[in-house]
Amino acid sequence: MQSNIGRLITLEGCEGVGKSTQIELLKAYCEEKKIDAVFTREPGGTIVAEKIRDIILDTNSDIERMTELLLYSAARVEHLFKIIKPALEKGKLVFCDRFIDSTTAYQGYGRGIDLGFIEYLNKSMLKIVSIDTTFFLDLSPECGFNRKGGADKNDRIDSESLDFHERVYKGFKEIVKNNKRIVTIDAKQDKYKILKQICKSIKI
Amino acid sequence: MQSNIGRLITLEGCEGVGKSTQIELLKAYCEEKKIDAVFTREPGGTIVAEKIRDIILDTNSDIERMTELLLYSAARVEHLFKIIKPALEKGKLVFCDRFIDSTTAYQGYGRGIDLGFIEYLNKSMLKIVSIDTTFFLDLSPECGFNRKGGADKNDRIDSESLDFHERVYKGFKEIVKNNKRIVTIDAKQDKYKILKQICKSIKI
Repeated sequence: MQSNIGRLITLEGCEGVGKSTQIELLKAYCEEKKIDAVFTREPGGTIVAEKIRDIILDTNSDIERMTELLLYSAARVEHLFKIIKPALEKGKLVFCDRFIDSTTAYQGYGRGIDLGFIEYLNKSMLKIVSIDTTFFLDLSPECGFNRKGGADKNDRIDSESLDFHERVYKGFKEIVKNNKRIVTIDAKQDKYKILKQICKSIKI
Repeated sequence: MQSNIGRLITLEGCEGVGKSTQIELLKAYCEEKKIDAVFTREPGGTIVAEKIRDIILDTNSDIERMTELLLYSAARVEHLFKIIKPALEKGKLVFCDRFIDSTTAYQGYGRGIDLGFIEYLNKSMLKIVSIDTTFFLDLSPECGFNRKGGADKNDRIDSESLDFHERVYKGFKEIVKNNKRIVTIDAKQDKYKILKQICKSIKI
């Protein structure tokens, strides 16, 4: 049962596209405008979710990709019920850095887990809360890496890793095609211009 | 992709129906007959699965039932890939004390989680391995409690708990109706008679 009074806004995109920067700018914007907003990211600071994260990080080399998906989903459910849903019920505006579309892009398109299964999991999350708007910060993996790591760090990214991120990027593009709630934003633009686009789009 | 050469046999039923006793008897029987069999139960002794179990037990009071389901499923996937599937691929006979039907009965019928969701999860497990035969040891919760705890302990079971186990029992009965792979066994019978029925049914 969905009981949103507030609105859930999610930010999606590949590495280095500027999601964290936008979250910081949005935080400052909402403070200035006295908008009651919550800014969160998974696992989102619940005890159980943090413990789950520890398992994934501790045993990364030996864990099945399907186990990893289910563990991430378990952490998401905790985060949804304990952080996001209560905030939405209080009428707040909730900004979440990555959400279900990242799972589809990274674990579905990137790692090759059955997309039907991921879609089913995602749909069950959307029975708990609905997403008002998703912003896809569109930037190719090459540009993202360059921006995040600079030229030196970029040298260390091997071809397999870039292949993976290319698959993730193509995945995001597919997801955007199939979901009207997603607004694509050219992430090469000036950060204040992006902020303005986001605020205008959700009318804040 | 299923690649069973061996056979997976699962034992299901409410508390105190004698599953552990049958597992012990089957173990002795297979040893005598020199049948190469593996006996397991979830979480089945994988490191990741044990860690997941710790989370569930540590935070039992505060965990969402959906989180619990996903955590149990994550542990099952590890157990499936690391213990059951390799044994089946070596052509072994694998006996598992509780499997997907317990999830449907306990978390679906018992705790009230959406049965469609559980069915989807279960079906994805059956893409990894298939079940040859399931034995449902049929005994009402009252009889099971009496058998397990004796008259004294039985007094401590409050009505809510009995209600829960009644729902689980009814759930098992529904599952049996809908699955041809399940053989119902009258669990009130003598334990050696039950053993004989199981062995005859799977031709060992």
